[in-house]
Amino acid sequence: MIASTSHISIDGDRLLDRIDQLSRIGADPRGGVTREAWGDADVEARDLVARWMAAADLRPTVDPAANLVGRSPGHGDRWLATGSHLDTVVQAGPLDGTYGVLAALEVASSLHDAGHHMQHGLLVAAFANEEGARGTSGMTGSYACVGHTEEAPPDEVDDAGVTVGERILAAGGDPDRLREARWDPDAIDAFVELHIEQGPVLHANGTSIGVVSAITGRQALDLSITGVANHAGTTPMDLRHDALAAAADVVLAVESLPGPGSVRVATCGHLLVGPNVRNVVPGRVEMGIELRDEDPETLAAGTRRLIERIDAVAARRGVAMDRRLGQMVPPVTSDPRIVDAARAVCERTGTSWELLPSGAGHDAQVIGRMLAVGMIFVPSIGGISHSPRERTDAHHLVAGAEVLLRTLLELDEVLSATVPPSSVGDPGFR
Amino acid sequence: MIASTSHISIDGDRLLDRIDQLSRIGADPRGGVTREAWGDADVEARDLVARWMAAADLRPTVDPAANLVGRSPGHGDRWLATGSHLDTVVQAGPLDGTYGVLAALEVASSLHDAGHHMQHGLLVAAFANEEGARGTSGMTGSYACVGHTEEAPPDEVDDAGVTVGERILAAGGDPDRLREARWDPDAIDAFVELHIEQGPVLHANGTSIGVVSAITGRQALDLSITGVANHAGTTPMDLRHDALAAAADVVLAVESLPGPGSVRVATCGHLLVGPNVRNVVPGRVEMGIELRDEDPETLAAGTRRLIERIDAVAARRGVAMDRRLGQMVPPVTSDPRIVDAARAVCERTGTSWELLPSGAGHDAQVIGRMLAVGMIFVPSIGGISHSPRERTDAHHLVAGAEVLLRTLLELDEVLSATVPPSSVGDPGFR
Repeated sequence: MIASTSHISIDGDRLLDRIDQLSRIGADPRGGVTREAWGDADVEARDLVARWMAAADLRPTVDPAANLVGRSPGHGDRWLATGSHLDTVVQAGPLDGTYGVLAALEVASSLHDAGHHMQHGLLVAAFANEEGARGTSGMTGSYACVGHTEEAPPDEVDDAGVTVGERILAAGGDPDRLREARWDPDAIDAFVELHIEQGPVLHANGTSIGVVSAITGRQALDLSITGVANHAGTTPMDLRHDALAAAADVVLAVESLPGPGSVRVATCGHLLVGPNVRNVVPGRVEMGIELRDEDPETLAAGTRRLIERIDAVAARRGVAMDRRLGQMVPPVTSDPRIVDAARAVCERTGTSWELLPSGAGHDAQVIGRMLAVGMIFVPSIGGISHSPRERTDAHHLVAGAEVLLRTLLELDEVLSATVPPSSVGDPGFR
Repeated sequence: MIASTSHISIDGDRLLDRIDQLSRIGADPRGGVTREAWGDADVEARDLVARWMAAADLRPTVDPAANLVGRSPGHGDRWLATGSHLDTVVQAGPLDGTYGVLAALEVASSLHDAGHHMQHGLLVAAFANEEGARGTSGMTGSYACVGHTEEAPPDEVDDAGVTVGERILAAGGDPDRLREARWDPDAIDAFVELHIEQGPVLHANGTSIGVVSAITGRQALDLSITGVANHAGTTPMDLRHDALAAAADVVLAVESLPGPGSVRVATCGHLLVGPNVRNVVPGRVEMGIELRDEDPETLAAGTRRLIERIDAVAARRGVAMDRRLGQMVPPVTSDPRIVDAARAVCERTGTSWELLPSGAGHDAQVIGRMLAVGMIFVPSIGGISHSPRERTDAHHLVAGAEVLLRTLLELDEVLSATVPPSSVGDPGFR
């Protein structure tokens, strides 16, 4: 017999007030919020959220990876997890991961205020270093939660010459005990992350809620082009091996790669020229490229096709192309039970929704290596994110938290009915 | 009655030995020679050459622009000038301007050794800061010699935050008296500069001597592209305004500009991307472009055509292109009497030669604003210059100096016959 939950509701004002309070921690004089992982502002934000967690009976702990994890036990032995991250890029907006953490906290606060305990315990996580502070790989905290510390190793050195391990230690974690941050996959039935879309689709379509079908995969590709640097005045055009002209061919090949049957997006965001002097034909170019798609085979085929095009440019121009496949983050498909639960909530509450892929990477993608995951999006105005101009309408922020609450309540019912209670009671630290 | 000059000849060993000695002043531990203008090595090289000048009765002086100028009077009142520059780029080769100075010195030494005085006095110049040390405009010394100090002003600040005036002062010049460095155009009949080609043509054709028809003009163009920086994972391809993709279009438009009826060469050597992060669609690109041609109208037409193409890219991609015409160095046509003299010398001595334009800028181009100028080239192996790998075969270096000597002797006859002696006796400092 399941207790009625119709009287439980998000306190929208409290949520918006907390978002506002967090936006002041790490406020950047140049605009926006700079709260890079493990820094003073990040720790200050984590400590404030921990105090709010305690008030919602969410028993906060800081794990060895410096993740903030709060737990509120349920009637049974199993758990539902939610959350996101508090760290930001440089000059970020106020929402990004912060919104997902505070909405998860709001779910716990609302349940606590209503005196409601689910069958499942509720785990709320604020993962450490999702963004990859100071040139690090990122997702440090969520990788630790699934036991893949090799993907964000503590001996990685950041742009300031400090290791990730030293950063974790300074922020209150323990890099020597990272393995103990691993969650128990047998104890947690699902992880649901609420996030701003960071893309333009929901806003352009006027839709309130995005139910994420899958989180994009991402293939990085590094390319070093070596041509022949030479005098720009004396070297005839037909004797040149111009590394930048070759790079221009590659940039356009990357841009033309997406299309029907190919990858969803492809980008060359990073390019350095050498010697980079106006009157010298460029002899070297370094490029950073990435392809994204929700289907792993499409991603692999797109990568192969791009490499063919790159090699054709090299052959045609007589330049050397040293190409190196970089980080491959495999796509993750949302668990259909989570998708169905979120859809059902939207239908029942008359909230407009659409199914869409997540083009950005998220902690849920890492957690999805081990657990059933799903994501809920709210619109980003103009699709702008990682910018001081990142905004979402207040009513969308409140509606998103409400859908998260009701989706977790729905999953509490659905997964309690189908998954037999196990003997495992504690979701982490084992 | 002109004295026979058939017994006068270059001392090739002395020339090669002096080139070798100079290559050790400013030898760079990373390879090549670094003798940036006005620095200790540059002054040391100038002082050594001044001592050699004195031994050849070339009465050396350092003018207010820190040019080294040696003068050996002739029978008459008029002068022939030759020379080049001793300063180098960072990690240069041993030849570039140094060869032209030492060959000019060798002409004076050979005449002195033979006890031969021309009708014309001989002026040998080592111009200061041809290369544009530490980000400065360059050609500082030769601009002063033609009275155009506004083109290389003493208040220009270099990359180290030091003004050109302070540099000149430290190197023994006097920036407050730059105007006094101006040569008297009525006293000097011609300036002939011997130089390595710095391009591949002579070497590829197996020709010993290049007689320069004209020195290239150069139009610089700066371009700032502003698109919209956005998330590389969430921004659909059709909603992007990618500044780097637009820049790629421009790079290829620049590359395709030269051809029949258009400019000789066009280069994009400088490109910076912002924010230059792999997972962000580029929002800004800064580009440095230059076009070169020996015909001013062709250069202007090519510039107009490129701007049209740039504007078309901007319109098609929805990005802003802020384009700014930069420095325009007008082309200079060689004086036909100098061209004819050099050709006649090559024909008479059985030296293979061809007429070709200079694709690089030279002091002669600046001097050409005021005087009749011409240039003689020797082959650059592989066309390589501004590099520690810059080389010319020894026999070509000696042949080039011999052609310079005989061209000046030829001009001494030709110009003494056609130009009436004037009352002006001193070629500079007025």
